[in-house]
Amino acid sequence: MSYQIAVLAGDGIGPEVMAQARKVLAAAEQRFELNIEYSEYDIGGIAIDNHGCPLPKETLAGCEAADAILFGSVGGPKWEGLPPDSQPERGALLPLRAHFGLFCNLRPAKLHEGLEHLSPLRADISARGFDLVCVRELTGGIYFGKPKGRQGEGEAEEAFDTMRYSRKEIRRIATIAFETARGRRGKVTSVDKANVLACSVLWREVVEEVAKEFPDVTLEHIYIDNATMQLLRRPDEFDVMLCSNLFGDIISDEIAMLTGSMGLLSSASMNESGFGLYEPAGGSAPDIAGKGVANPIAQILSAALMLRHSLKQEDAAAAIERAVGKALSEGFLTGELATDAAAAKTTAEMGDFIAKAV
Amino acid sequence: MSYQIAVLAGDGIGPEVMAQARKVLAAAEQRFELNIEYSEYDIGGIAIDNHGCPLPKETLAGCEAADAILFGSVGGPKWEGLPPDSQPERGALLPLRAHFGLFCNLRPAKLHEGLEHLSPLRADISARGFDLVCVRELTGGIYFGKPKGRQGEGEAEEAFDTMRYSRKEIRRIATIAFETARGRRGKVTSVDKANVLACSVLWREVVEEVAKEFPDVTLEHIYIDNATMQLLRRPDEFDVMLCSNLFGDIISDEIAMLTGSMGLLSSASMNESGFGLYEPAGGSAPDIAGKGVANPIAQILSAALMLRHSLKQEDAAAAIERAVGKALSEGFLTGELATDAAAAKTTAEMGDFIAKAV
Ligand SMILES: CC(C)[C@H](C(=O)O)[C@@H](O)C(=O)O
Ligand SMILES: CC(C)[C@H](C(=O)O)[C@@H](O)C(=O)O
Repeated sequence: MSYQIAVLAGDGIGPEVMAQARKVLAAAEQRFELNIEYSEYDIGGIAIDNHGCPLPKETLAGCEAADAILFGSVGGPKWEGLPPDSQPERGALLPLRAHFGLFCNLRPAKLHEGLEHLSPLRADISARGFDLVCVRELTGGIYFGKPKGRQGEGEAEEAFDTMRYSRKEIRRIATIAFETARGRRGKVTSVDKANVLACSVLWREVVEEVAKEFPDVTLEHIYIDNATMQLLRRPDEFDVMLCSNLFGDIISDEIAMLTGSMGLLSSASMNESGFGLYEPAGGSAPDIAGKGVANPIAQILSAALMLRHSLKQEDAAAAIERAVGKALSEGFLTGELATDAAAAKTTAEMGDFIAKAV
Repeated sequence: MSYQIAVLAGDGIGPEVMAQARKVLAAAEQRFELNIEYSEYDIGGIAIDNHGCPLPKETLAGCEAADAILFGSVGGPKWEGLPPDSQPERGALLPLRAHFGLFCNLRPAKLHEGLEHLSPLRADISARGFDLVCVRELTGGIYFGKPKGRQGEGEAEEAFDTMRYSRKEIRRIATIAFETARGRRGKVTSVDKANVLACSVLWREVVEEVAKEFPDVTLEHIYIDNATMQLLRRPDEFDVMLCSNLFGDIISDEIAMLTGSMGLLSSASMNESGFGLYEPAGGSAPDIAGKGVANPIAQILSAALMLRHSLKQEDAAAAIERAVGKALSEGFLTGELATDAAAAKTTAEMGDFIAKAV
């Protein structure tokens, strides 16, 4: 099998963690006899510096020619003063999502055994552990709804955004949430604000319809405000959280923080034909960039998700995930996770360890 | 001085905690020689049962004739099957907010000394304590923006909501946030999603303008997704959180849960002329209603907020708050707060203690 991957390392720690993911992919290619070709393109801040815009034409063309995008991270203080549309994060991620119709965002967040102390939750709550996945709709809702803009003058000037969802959009993301739950603990919690939003009322209706096709999966509805609260008290009682674009943005970040180890979390954004963008959840972390201390695991697990979802190489994906599990269970940890700072591993040491384990 | 108060006890634990607030108010009236008249009206589920709608005409007329509304809580399983617009919470609270123009919602959340163990946060984080107030815009944004509705047929049927903010609306709530910060630790954190929403871009602009009039107050901006995260890691670094309607709904509930003691939290919703609605943050808690175990403190503190903000009786308000502080610091606690269940006080015992202390 032969594949084309567009590699968009980006800014901050992006390039250094990407180098480790490439190491691990090389090991997997050898072991599973895959033939993957990589093409590197600028994205985000570095693309602004080199080409004057966060998502250059060549980058987009490269992504179009590929089977999947392996994304690092974008953004940093250097570009924070730019107008919103030109900023690295917004100017790179949103157009990529829209262009490729990446409507389905999967963000798993699991509290790993032995890492409970990193969670910001009280010891008795984190001791119960949790294993969640947020299924977030990524190309609709208030992110892309029209009209969006400004009108009027002086103090009466107003801005407006439109939240918009069709039955079709809700159905396809809900179906993925139920399918995902079927392969896990069989529970979907749909997050909405049906006591206020017309979109949420339709959302509930369609989710109820989809639920009928999955009698083996339990469905519950929760308001976004209550969800934010209950995740703090009883995260172990949730399995799959189904969210619209805006609520998923909030919930996925909250559950990521609940693990206390953002350097372990990856995310997959996919379209209907299996094409996808795979990225770490943690951001570009400009404060530690270039120091060789960033945790490459989120990037490595993103590569595993890419193998699974876009390249359909389940064995290779699972092998990488096992190798990561080995590092964690053997206490082979980078600085932000290690209790003993002196024993902390570097970015490259972690990449080597996992590549070897694969 | 003579005042008129509309008392809307509502459902669940509403009536029993309201009875305690009335006791405490009676004590304050005596000590500070106030003359307060109370008129009781049905609201929420009980109003649906008695009058067929959650906010009957007589209730609204009674509120119009009053100087302030003392609100209990509404809702319960009995009315959950009703269509959204007819439900107790939405059908009572949203119209009251709109009718009286209660644009300013203050929700304080403080971790009380000695109650740190109740917070769902890790011991070393809760040990640092926190003292936050969410200043939430309450009559604009996506809650009330038009158009809102549905159109189309079949799978193409779609629902839409409009988020809308004018400079004027943003300016008046931002001004209150800065004034509030001035009387506290001098820091405003404005919560938005300016990397996605046109409303948030305008929000930031106007907040920056208002900030210029308060050179003694520090301003920072944070995205809603990041705010949800940072509150878990470093709640002690925030002071006043300035939020639009939807984001304030989420943030105020998150910070309430972070205290771990919802039975202590009250909220004030005010308009430009000082008229206000005062209510506990905790909800109607139908599971413990009628058992005499609910914590009346949130309701009692709501009465104190009413005395301060609508009746301008600062001394009486402060006396009630001191009396509540006495109960907490002496370990006089209701069941959900008490470590020793046998020593837990009833709803009425708590009311008596605080009334006496006033
Ligand atoms: C950068 C921003 C536009 C983006 C979003 O809000 O979706 C980010 O927060 C995310 O969650 O991937
Ligand atoms: C009942 C509901 C409409 C309301 C809101 O969303 O404002 C509630 O959650 C609140 O925060 O007071």
